Amino acid sequence: MSFSLIILGSSSAVPTSDRFPPAHLLNVDERFYLIDCGEGVQIQLRRFGIRFGRISHIFISHLHGDHVFGLFGLLSSFSLMGRSSDLHIYGPQTLEDLLNAHFSFFNQERKYSVTFHKLTAKTRKRIFEDERITVDAFPLRHSTQCYGFLFREKEKLRNILKEAISRYKIPIRVMMAIKQGEDFIDDSGKIIPNEELTVPPPRPRAFAYCSDTMYFPALARMVKDVDLLYHEATFLKKDQKLARETMHSTAYDAAITALNAHARHLVIGHFSTRYKTTEGFVKEATDVFPDVSEAVDGYRYLVEQNGNLVVEPCREKK
Amino acid sequence: MSFSLIILGSSSAVPTSDRFPPAHLLNVDERFYLIDCGEGVQIQLRRFGIRFGRISHIFISHLHGDHVFGLFGLLSSFSLMGRSSDLHIYGPQTLEDLLNAHFSFFNQERKYSVTFHKLTAKTRKRIFEDERITVDAFPLRHSTQCYGFLFREKEKLRNILKEAISRYKIPIRVMMAIKQGEDFIDDSGKIIPNEELTVPPPRPRAFAYCSDTMYFPALARMVKDVDLLYHEATFLKKDQKLARETMHSTAYDAAITALNAHARHLVIGHFSTRYKTTEGFVKEATDVFPDVSEAVDGYRYLVEQNGNLVVEPCREKK
Repeated sequence: MSFSLIILGSSSAVPTSDRFPPAHLLNVDERFYLIDCGEGVQIQLRRFGIRFGRISHIFISHLHGDHVFGLFGLLSSFSLMGRSSDLHIYGPQTLEDLLNAHFSFFNQERKYSVTFHKLTAKTRKRIFEDERITVDAFPLRHSTQCYGFLFREKEKLRNILKEAISRYKIPIRVMMAIKQGEDFIDDSGKIIPNEELTVPPPRPRAFAYCSDTMYFPALARMVKDVDLLYHEATFLKKDQKLARETMHSTAYDAAITALNAHARHLVIGHFSTRYKTTEGFVKEATDVFPDVSEAVDGYRYLVEQNGNLVVEPCREKK
Repeated sequence: MSFSLIILGSSSAVPTSDRFPPAHLLNVDERFYLIDCGEGVQIQLRRFGIRFGRISHIFISHLHGDHVFGLFGLLSSFSLMGRSSDLHIYGPQTLEDLLNAHFSFFNQERKYSVTFHKLTAKTRKRIFEDERITVDAFPLRHSTQCYGFLFREKEKLRNILKEAISRYKIPIRVMMAIKQGEDFIDDSGKIIPNEELTVPPPRPRAFAYCSDTMYFPALARMVKDVDLLYHEATFLKKDQKLARETMHSTAYDAAITALNAHARHLVIGHFSTRYKTTEGFVKEATDVFPDVSEAVDGYRYLVEQNGNLVVEPCREKK
């Protein structure tokens, strides 16, 4: 089952010639969870050949324009492309007001329902769950109400060994119970312990998204033990004062949080345009935390079943 | 003096992997007039190295999302980049309401003033004038209040021949009068006719923008004799019924209007995504009108002083 983050936009508030405003897709087995929705997100989806219909859940961290201006065009295109399936949007209350204002200005015919889920929690809280993943939201510290998101695969069932099936002649009707951890009693009444029949399922993978936020120590607890941590790094440490004033993080801050969270891999993005190159960011973070990747538009950050990270460009559609 | 159209977005309502939503820049001697403002316009400006500060006038044809969703991000980036110079926005009344709603949602500090100019005219009307150009708006026929725009260079002064200056010893103090068409009286009292002293100025160039609209014969009169006509061509003639229903044009319609307007060059864009390729559009239009170019994102359509058209890609900033 695939578990990968696709970066659609890695700039901070002002885009550059090669970085779109913040937008990110988590691909869990070809279901796409859209996290923030910067201007041009639908163009990026087109560019990387991602089918709009695969997105049913959109998570908006906060109501600063660079994280939300792509939502209007996307919702409009959903309509024009004939979407009928439900859409769920998660965000602060202001987002619902904005959406309602938007719908009343552009009274486009819409054949799909939009359900808005208001984020209010003061601590980490479950906001979504399906058969594959859970999503928690947790408050960040920014100049406006802002949330991070934690995506975690659900624990899977144990895998029955093929050789055990033939050796013990395990009938299909008991297989689910064995996958759930039960022992097997054969025709002679002998108990075969579950450990002899199965191997544990792959470890559930987790991804956390933290943007925008200033550094605060408690954040590491919210995102503890994730395989992949996306953390904003708007500034370099030399501009720490500016980071504090604007309630953003430095690359160093992001790395400290990754270190304290015992994250496996860190991806940093949301770079300020004040820096001519982004070279300094990864260097600064790597001094603190060993496994740092730079967010690049159109790149996929794939967490393998064993927890390893594979970084590769998505294929562009032409 | 340069006079060129730059296509920033050439899709219709839904963008494709290589066509952004509608946005166009008219470059008159390095002053940029932005015409419609589809999602991602600021990204395209960045990509083609166009300085945001060169834009002081934005013309919005109508309030369908694909023509306006890029405005919010652009206005926000103007603020973040420290703009202080005045901005003028032209559009239907609903646009002012939308802008006010937007400003109240995103109460970003703004150090530049925005002056809104409401378009209401039922016929062609002057809406802007500076020392170089005039801009007229005229009503189009679409499913919502919609305007086209006519940009025309102002008549320039006549050019005094260098050889005349030396032959007749023309003093500087009378040169302006001669450039304005007056004759010259030399020291002996002899009248030298203006025609012997000057050559006429280059012909003023004109550009008209028509999107979105259904075909109507009177449109050709509004855009009569323009050097460059941008006209939407959402559909092919075989889908004429659909064009009428949605109040859009076919490539054939665009060409007929160009022909009846005695335009020099026609650029067509706003292609529907229902067609796999755009090849049929130029072919259909060229059967009617000889000089047709396809709108391509990132291409410049330069009208030379003699009226000839040069089509070339803009250099991308990397």
